[in-house]
Amino acid sequence: MKQNDYFQKSQYPFLSASFDLHNTPPGEIDYRIKHLKKGMMDRGLDALLIIQKMDVYYFSGTTQDGVLFVPVDHQPILFVKREICRAEAESALDTIIEFQSIKEIPKRLDDFNLPSPKTIGLELDVLPANDYFKIKKLFPPSRLSDASKIIRDIRKTKSPYELECMKNAGRIGERTYVEGIKHLKEGISEIEFGGMLEREAKKLGSEGLLRVRSMNYEAYSWHILAGPTGGIVSQSDSPMGGLGLSPAFPVGASRRPIQANEPIVVDFGTCSQGYQADETRTFCIGELPKKFLDAYEACDEIHNAVLSETRPGVHCEYLFELSVKTAKKLGYEENYLGPPGLQTRFVGHGIGLELNEFPFLAKGHSYELEEGMTFALEPKIVFPGEGAVGIENTVYVNRDGYEFVTPLENRLFVV
Amino acid sequence: MKQNDYFQKSQYPFLSASFDLHNTPPGEIDYRIKHLKKGMMDRGLDALLIIQKMDVYYFSGTTQDGVLFVPVDHQPILFVKREICRAEAESALDTIIEFQSIKEIPKRLDDFNLPSPKTIGLELDVLPANDYFKIKKLFPPSRLSDASKIIRDIRKTKSPYELECMKNAGRIGERTYVEGIKHLKEGISEIEFGGMLEREAKKLGSEGLLRVRSMNYEAYSWHILAGPTGGIVSQSDSPMGGLGLSPAFPVGASRRPIQANEPIVVDFGTCSQGYQADETRTFCIGELPKKFLDAYEACDEIHNAVLSETRPGVHCEYLFELSVKTAKKLGYEENYLGPPGLQTRFVGHGIGLELNEFPFLAKGHSYELEEGMTFALEPKIVFPGEGAVGIENTVYVNRDGYEFVTPLENRLFVV
Repeated sequence: MKQNDYFQKSQYPFLSASFDLHNTPPGEIDYRIKHLKKGMMDRGLDALLIIQKMDVYYFSGTTQDGVLFVPVDHQPILFVKREICRAEAESALDTIIEFQSIKEIPKRLDDFNLPSPKTIGLELDVLPANDYFKIKKLFPPSRLSDASKIIRDIRKTKSPYELECMKNAGRIGERTYVEGIKHLKEGISEIEFGGMLEREAKKLGSEGLLRVRSMNYEAYSWHILAGPTGGIVSQSDSPMGGLGLSPAFPVGASRRPIQANEPIVVDFGTCSQGYQADETRTFCIGELPKKFLDAYEACDEIHNAVLSETRPGVHCEYLFELSVKTAKKLGYEENYLGPPGLQTRFVGHGIGLELNEFPFLAKGHSYELEEGMTFALEPKIVFPGEGAVGIENTVYVNRDGYEFVTPLENRLFVV
Repeated sequence: MKQNDYFQKSQYPFLSASFDLHNTPPGEIDYRIKHLKKGMMDRGLDALLIIQKMDVYYFSGTTQDGVLFVPVDHQPILFVKREICRAEAESALDTIIEFQSIKEIPKRLDDFNLPSPKTIGLELDVLPANDYFKIKKLFPPSRLSDASKIIRDIRKTKSPYELECMKNAGRIGERTYVEGIKHLKEGISEIEFGGMLEREAKKLGSEGLLRVRSMNYEAYSWHILAGPTGGIVSQSDSPMGGLGLSPAFPVGASRRPIQANEPIVVDFGTCSQGYQADETRTFCIGELPKKFLDAYEACDEIHNAVLSETRPGVHCEYLFELSVKTAKKLGYEENYLGPPGLQTRFVGHGIGLELNEFPFLAKGHSYELEEGMTFALEPKIVFPGEGAVGIENTVYVNRDGYEFVTPLENRLFVV
């Protein structure tokens, strides 16, 4: 059942006109599945059982509650628990069937005359151990192996369609910053100011949460760190974590009132059709003291130095080291990417449906940039006890170099 | 290092005065660890390796990046990667040591003269399979087993301290609703109105995200479903999902403008010190048509019928069935907890640090309520193509019955 039929059947004809669900185009899904099957053949996998929500979305176009079974020599079968009509309206896949539990799958494969696969790939990087054991029992003769690398490898380069989704998130981000700064005034707390920005982003249609691929790592959509809270490191693998609100949420905006003449790091991510854009600007109420102004300009110089070398074929670790070298040349070796002794070892992270995709511009990541990759580049300089400054943009690696996903002007935001 | 020393050492003395981190009291941690060790002894476990963030928080008081190793006959050891000083400031545990990777743990246990445990309990319900295999290799002679039930069993009853945290979240929720309704006007989109409520909640200090214990299940802090979008079912196991913003976020608020004389279901969760409160009220601009008014009153009656039987010793499934029976008696059998054919089979879910804790007032959950349990009770009635109404409160099971965690008035919110 396709979108309009869904709305008709569901008695919501009014929705079909005004609220396009923005389905992933069928050509995208075809291409991704072909790409996936090639990866499966290279790795000798007879089938993949895809369970993680963003992987299911990427290969099917829907996030309805279900799993995607991809035999290497048969079309994919999307099993949906809830809600099947919606999944049919959203997904370009041909075979979508209702199920209640993963236990039914072996029997259903029989119904399709599909042989039991000898090898099944699973997302073992995120699939809970108990679920692994359950699947093991369901397919006793099959060898189960980790297919997360195949999937993450395919997802690391973005199509023009995906780029357009990310740029839409970038445009939402731009307008969020431009509207949001109007709410900044002396005495407003970091968390209240963050709430104001969130409201602007939601008004513009920024979606839900920023997703990450991890058991424990949670993405906060935004961090507002003003003055000394910008010098505080917390549990996140980022240059500064901030004070947060309690030991349960020890990262990001706090209740501290924002003051004049201190740097305010505003790191705000936005999302459209599941695709994210991530950016940071440094704000200030009144004049920013010279120490921070100089450091901000250094961040801008590091940002530009890395981008001047951003193109397919360049090593990710080289770009990280280039950023460190530039920071050192500018006199910020001790405070680059964190306070002395607590510096992080990355300056960029891949981004798309999740905040922690490949590539990472980081120590130890010795692979090359490829055309179609997208990453957030975020040089930051941190003075413990005083504050932090930084800049961040999301970029797309094109044939000749890069283009911005985040169109917001690169400048200090002063009120 | 304790909190004030942390702030001194970290050069943030200003923070210690005005921004108490609200640490979990040492007595709480002691009690929980004792309780845990009893569970371990009952199950014959020599040690637990606790990795999931909320479990680590519950037993240590910190969410800094780390893992908690609990030998049954030795004090717990909290291993922290980032940031150790902050963990020391937040946690009441005595033994907190820095580490970089889980690989170091066997050697560190040697340093403590601890024998290699014969059996190690892990959170196999959420621990990714790859991590399980890694741990298996690190402790080759040890038997690994699932300890998630022990942990979830302990966490299912709340102490007076935890109740107070939840009540604080409830008070934030109350003020969010009272302030938020001022923003409701004809033509505002569901998502924009949600953003307004979110801004009010953040201003009041509501924390980050609503956490859930799951690989794929994501909690949205709020759902705003007005008129016909309230009749739409989506991927979530809830009576209605709404239209959402795209197939990537097909749940909750949409871009549809809210109109007069239609029911608006506002389901908004709040969070304080990691503890959640969840509540729903039905809003309306102008007069609510009689059909929905009657259904709303039925929800109120079902809500009260369940609460009149809420006390220790009552079976959870019985309360669910009682709610169904009451709905049937009132003439809403077909539309109770979802549109016809898509009804859910629960009317309440446990809540605390996560939205899906025990108990569940649901089909098949044949265990008894215990003193100290907390759950969100949410009868809802759904008319496909037209709209939904509902009510939800979070309650605490006390010796004699129950008390409200959410103090907000039980009434229609009409503007």
